[in-house]
Amino acid sequence: MTISRMPTHAGVQRAAEKIAAILPPTPLLPLEIDGQTIWCKAECLQPVGAFKIRGAWHRLTDLDAAERARGVVGVSSGNHAQGVAWSAARLGIAATIVMPVDAPAVKLAATRALGAEVVLYDRPAGENRDEVAARLVAERGATLVHAFADPWVIEGQGSAGIEIAAQMAELAGDEPRLIVAPCGGGGLAGGLALACPDALVVPVEPEGWDTVGQSLAAGSLVPVGPGAPPTNCDALQPPVTHQINLDVLQGRVTQAATVTPSEVRAAQRLAFAKLRLVVEPGGAAALAAVLAGRIAVQPRTAVILSGGNTDPAAYAQVLLGDD
Amino acid sequence: MTISRMPTHAGVQRAAEKIAAILPPTPLLPLEIDGQTIWCKAECLQPVGAFKIRGAWHRLTDLDAAERARGVVGVSSGNHAQGVAWSAARLGIAATIVMPVDAPAVKLAATRALGAEVVLYDRPAGENRDEVAARLVAERGATLVHAFADPWVIEGQGSAGIEIAAQMAELAGDEPRLIVAPCGGGGLAGGLALACPDALVVPVEPEGWDTVGQSLAAGSLVPVGPGAPPTNCDALQPPVTHQINLDVLQGRVTQAATVTPSEVRAAQRLAFAKLRLVVEPGGAAALAAVLAGRIAVQPRTAVILSGGNTDPAAYAQVLLGDD
Repeated sequence: MTISRMPTHAGVQRAAEKIAAILPPTPLLPLEIDGQTIWCKAECLQPVGAFKIRGAWHRLTDLDAAERARGVVGVSSGNHAQGVAWSAARLGIAATIVMPVDAPAVKLAATRALGAEVVLYDRPAGENRDEVAARLVAERGATLVHAFADPWVIEGQGSAGIEIAAQMAELAGDEPRLIVAPCGGGGLAGGLALACPDALVVPVEPEGWDTVGQSLAAGSLVPVGPGAPPTNCDALQPPVTHQINLDVLQGRVTQAATVTPSEVRAAQRLAFAKLRLVVEPGGAAALAAVLAGRIAVQPRTAVILSGGNTDPAAYAQVLLGDD
Repeated sequence: MTISRMPTHAGVQRAAEKIAAILPPTPLLPLEIDGQTIWCKAECLQPVGAFKIRGAWHRLTDLDAAERARGVVGVSSGNHAQGVAWSAARLGIAATIVMPVDAPAVKLAATRALGAEVVLYDRPAGENRDEVAARLVAERGATLVHAFADPWVIEGQGSAGIEIAAQMAELAGDEPRLIVAPCGGGGLAGGLALACPDALVVPVEPEGWDTVGQSLAAGSLVPVGPGAPPTNCDALQPPVTHQINLDVLQGRVTQAATVTPSEVRAAQRLAFAKLRLVVEPGGAAALAAVLAGRIAVQPRTAVILSGGNTDPAAYAQVLLGDD
């Protein structure tokens, strides 16, 4: 995959302006934890239920007429899929999404309902989704809209940080000092770091799936190990981050964290009880890290609740459980 | 109970200004139903999980120093309780709340956690909550903050309509034509009718508990019948509306609707899947009426999702069910 350019702070600002023109800011909701107020950015309230609509909209609106006519191909476990499908439908662009056969049923159904063609790949059997996507791109002359390794996508996700900065200034008197974000490939974390260069941005990955944290520590790409434990965070399971993400994060992000499935469920239950928000497992990873004490909270801490697409039966089991 | 004055449109506007100073507007979220977009006012995202914080804040901030020193007494199944407790805690006012013994555990716990004293009454046995409250008021010289039969409370709830008008104008080009709201005693419906005099406001009550709809039809107070069927809408069970509410609603509200427990559960499931919002049964009544086709949707329809305080086990059963 050839990367055409690096994402920039100016690019994030431009993305934020484009996104503000069609999507109201998601609320930044106060949540008291041990006497300290943290601020939860409710990205699960986006029209597709996740922040991914940001990067997809920035990417697709920058395509020229010839590119739009040839369509786009996305690769996603479900949330990026819906972001691309939603944006493509609004712009009259044909969208094909490569999704794992074991994606949550709600995500598969929602992507198809938005008018996208879904091509399944066998994630459990180890089929390489990037190869499936590359074949489709070659066959159709389509534009690949990668879920995280794309400068537009990174800038678009960063628009959440521009909103947080404005909201935190109004609600808490100044810009954010700490932003904690769920992390799959690192697109959101990179965008936030570009958006808010003076804030500490901490990506949170599922235990054993910390390709971003490990790659940052090693200074080079470290894939998820073959013996990675099961995780409930279906949205945070890329096999490895990409070089562009590592390049953006290096020097800007110095700390990362991981969370266990049990910690994620506890965060989902807290979001239910205290915020009345439905948050999917991957979307609750950052809140889980804060609740579990894995990240020291500061005044003016923002926590991204990145998505809320989850099967009702699975969510009901989380509410009924206590681990 | 003596009513000191009638609520006014100017009073709603003043309430809206006071509330805007401490609470950001709750989002007005688009929801597509059968190809038509309706706009859902997410009052379940208020800090106490319900719109009741509005009326309580307007009432308590208008008390003078002597009244504040003597404290307040509220009567509530749980959401008004939390609104009063939240406001009282911020203003340093002692709050006592009369609550039914069978209120949801989350509502009892949350009210106590906000620092209020809770006095239980035996709703299932027919104990009169207003008498319990009147005794406390007399004993303590406290101010009664009624959940709906109070001009400040009505004006405060109406502030949601001021927000809707501004948001609808921005998002959909003009002010609302139809506002559908869950209805217990009629405080919210009355406030909305005062706030938006050119909109059609339709209150929605649980089947068999439609004291407001029946009273409007009769032109006089009609209590809930002794054989009223069970309802899951614990927030919408006052035994009868009050004269001040009827006076506000008459001439302003010409249509009302009722919903069944099953219709309410379907609306809760839709809010979960499409809006990622936790909505309690009573909070979903207006959406239920729209989904069930009991109210004809128009362009620029707003639907109030009035609260999200529900026990996790009960909510899990709603998600797992299909009736």
